[in-house]
Amino acid sequence: MNRPAPSRIPRPGKEGNVMFDEEYEVVVVGSGFAGLAAAIEAREAGRSVLIIEKMRVPGGNSAISGGMFAVVGSPLQESAGVQDSPALLAADMVRAGQGLNQPDLVRTVAEHSLEAFLWTRDHLGVAFDDALIHGGGHSLPRTHITPGCSGAAIIQAMLVRCRELGIPLRMQCALEDLVRDRDGRVAGLAVRDGYIFPQPGSGARIRIRATRGVVLASGGFSQDVAFRSALNPRLDATIDTTNHPGATAEALVSALRAGALPVHLSWIQMGPWTSRDEEGWGVGSMFTVLVGFPHGIMVDATTGRRFVNELTDRLARFRHIAMEGRDPMVIVGEEAALRYPSLTQCLKRKVVWKYDTLEALALDQGIDAAPLAETLAAYNEAAGRGVDPVFGKPVKAESRYQIRPPYYLARLKPKVHYCNGGILINPGAQVLDAGTQGPIPGLYAAGEVTGGVNGACRIQGVAICECIVFGRIAGRGAAEG
Amino acid sequence: MNRPAPSRIPRPGKEGNVMFDEEYEVVVVGSGFAGLAAAIEAREAGRSVLIIEKMRVPGGNSAISGGMFAVVGSPLQESAGVQDSPALLAADMVRAGQGLNQPDLVRTVAEHSLEAFLWTRDHLGVAFDDALIHGGGHSLPRTHITPGCSGAAIIQAMLVRCRELGIPLRMQCALEDLVRDRDGRVAGLAVRDGYIFPQPGSGARIRIRATRGVVLASGGFSQDVAFRSALNPRLDATIDTTNHPGATAEALVSALRAGALPVHLSWIQMGPWTSRDEEGWGVGSMFTVLVGFPHGIMVDATTGRRFVNELTDRLARFRHIAMEGRDPMVIVGEEAALRYPSLTQCLKRKVVWKYDTLEALALDQGIDAAPLAETLAAYNEAAGRGVDPVFGKPVKAESRYQIRPPYYLARLKPKVHYCNGGILINPGAQVLDAGTQGPIPGLYAAGEVTGGVNGACRIQGVAICECIVFGRIAGRGAAEG
Repeated sequence: MNRPAPSRIPRPGKEGNVMFDEEYEVVVVGSGFAGLAAAIEAREAGRSVLIIEKMRVPGGNSAISGGMFAVVGSPLQESAGVQDSPALLAADMVRAGQGLNQPDLVRTVAEHSLEAFLWTRDHLGVAFDDALIHGGGHSLPRTHITPGCSGAAIIQAMLVRCRELGIPLRMQCALEDLVRDRDGRVAGLAVRDGYIFPQPGSGARIRIRATRGVVLASGGFSQDVAFRSALNPRLDATIDTTNHPGATAEALVSALRAGALPVHLSWIQMGPWTSRDEEGWGVGSMFTVLVGFPHGIMVDATTGRRFVNELTDRLARFRHIAMEGRDPMVIVGEEAALRYPSLTQCLKRKVVWKYDTLEALALDQGIDAAPLAETLAAYNEAAGRGVDPVFGKPVKAESRYQIRPPYYLARLKPKVHYCNGGILINPGAQVLDAGTQGPIPGLYAAGEVTGGVNGACRIQGVAICECIVFGRIAGRGAAEG
Repeated sequence: MNRPAPSRIPRPGKEGNVMFDEEYEVVVVGSGFAGLAAAIEAREAGRSVLIIEKMRVPGGNSAISGGMFAVVGSPLQESAGVQDSPALLAADMVRAGQGLNQPDLVRTVAEHSLEAFLWTRDHLGVAFDDALIHGGGHSLPRTHITPGCSGAAIIQAMLVRCRELGIPLRMQCALEDLVRDRDGRVAGLAVRDGYIFPQPGSGARIRIRATRGVVLASGGFSQDVAFRSALNPRLDATIDTTNHPGATAEALVSALRAGALPVHLSWIQMGPWTSRDEEGWGVGSMFTVLVGFPHGIMVDATTGRRFVNELTDRLARFRHIAMEGRDPMVIVGEEAALRYPSLTQCLKRKVVWKYDTLEALALDQGIDAAPLAETLAAYNEAAGRGVDPVFGKPVKAESRYQIRPPYYLARLKPKVHYCNGGILINPGAQVLDAGTQGPIPGLYAAGEVTGGVNGACRIQGVAICECIVFGRIAGRGAAEG
């Protein structure tokens, strides 16, 4: 597709009694994976499209994410001989989600993961690593990752495509209200143009008509302390988060006011792999995700013992840490540690600590060496046999699973990571009305602002996958709308 | 207080652009415990009050509830030598609620439970039984009950008081929309007058102004299969409920559209004590609540073994039943069974079964007698010593805890019972705005339509208690508003 003419069509329109200042066929709120995927699809279907983004930089959490993509039936799985199926991913999602997931949404993600991955790789030209990851909560390895271990690579490719397509991306433009007409259809939105985050009322209020559809892809609210602690008073300002500053609830709230059905809002995910020695997501989270949990052990510093399968889902790991009052640390051997590209940075920032002997580790961390030595010996023996009899971790009988000196250690502290809940959509990415439980005409949503896909707990790599699956569905739906 | 003049003042008013057909100082939505308590308080504070109720009969779930009232520091506790405190009740609520409860709301209930109980007993003249119940999830006995084991006695006394106060109770009048004025204040409501449940759009749409406040006390949505299964797809139409037919979500949804903050909606409580041999709440639920669980054992019919502390909270009991695939039945001895006033009815309806011997029980129910005999012997031995070493049930060394022939058995099947979540209020019963997390001026709420008090799981007798505590606070707040 060659560059089309710019899609901005400032043709003031009128809907019922509401005067609009501008008009597009499709308006997308948010510039992360879901929003950009929706915009690309809608534009490629020939529609005029506007993307609005409240922050000064595009990409939201997507740009700082780990770049992990759960895929069923990928070429990498095939070459590794991993027998996967959409039904198996769906079962993993529902097990972690405690059955709160809507089955048709789960099925949609699982059945479209490969198509979404290939679109990202081939249509957008995003490179992926040639190693497969066995992520927490998955019954087998199916996670793919970008070479830099960051979602920024995907966002960059999406932004390039948006530029090629001539889609305007209006920064510092925040959704204030969705406008429903007399028939209940979302006819457009009122925004703050020139918005300065996080100042309510900053910028000028203007109304933008969307003749075919609005796509909400505004992300979660992990940074919104007042909102999240209304849902869970323990998630107050003393709890850190991995999220970017703009992960706040305003757009979600405007959808609720417009009648969208909220589900699972209090299921706010705590990441079990974040470091206590840095703020936010940092450099340490991916050390633990990529090497610490798959190839190492998590022990309680107080006891020197493991207490959970390091590869169970995030909610289960967090609950063991929180309810049992654990002081968690992860320990891994050198062969595994060196696989993490940012290891040097981790060591420099003292987020990962290197010790030549177990005694040095125990002395420096002020813990008892004896039980830790026992734990390591038992784990190495289990990993040697390829079976973890105590916690059922899926270990492989490979030498890199053996934890030998020198040891690499990271000290963990869970942080708010992801909002499992949001507004409910159907498999067509249409937002459902709280009153009728049927679609709100003209309103679509995708990504973290939605709920129902993950239920109580999202598992690794499903965020990017669902953002692209439902973002594309939402964009096509709005284009046809 | 003598009978005042009727409080209906049909003085049409205007608020912004909205024309109102009628005007009161306080309008209460719903005629259960919370609504009637609010109406009584507001009227006794001298305000004109209207109660609207969408059904043909008043009382909602309150009128068919078990009439159990959790109270801290009651005369009955004192005479029984039970050392209780508001902090202890609060701790029980938060433990069952998994910490999702808002601490200030929990504290408000715990600190006002005695005052609310005495108001119900002395001001309204409701009689209570002289036996104290140790309810599931409570660390000690604190539940009081009406002689007929029904909330109808409290509703009747409240309706009498409302009549004495001249408060109009308009039946078949359903909330359709809350009206917020330009300043964001709830100025009144649009209703369907002459509404025929459950027909949307039936009756005439009229607007009622509330110059001081609207109190939402519209209850939960356990009967609303479409709404509840959007939140939890497993709670579909195949799952029964204990609730009255009017327990649907329309009023809650109108509050969400008006900007109220929803919390914990997906925490829908399953009652672990309902019978599989009758529909709904029936006569069997209270048999299990009052005698089966406190004085008997719950076993899995398949194994003949106990599998959980019969007096832990409802969520924990339900999870054991559901996640372990249990086929639960409760068995109790005669001394305990005879304590339940409706035992004859239970036997007649084959909701409770009586057997002279264990062999007869096992044969008739098609289960293995040997493990059941072992289970009973172990339990009797434990109850004799006053300690349950396996499940930690708080058994007392009293003869009535011994389970001897003849045996009384009820077969259980969990049913949807209660909505822990709803719109968030503050300790002043003011409804909070999803956007600002501050109070919505003019809007109050109490009872099951609210969330935040119980978090993940409400425990026994707290519903009536919180309805009356927050209903009264809401009524006084609206009167002052």
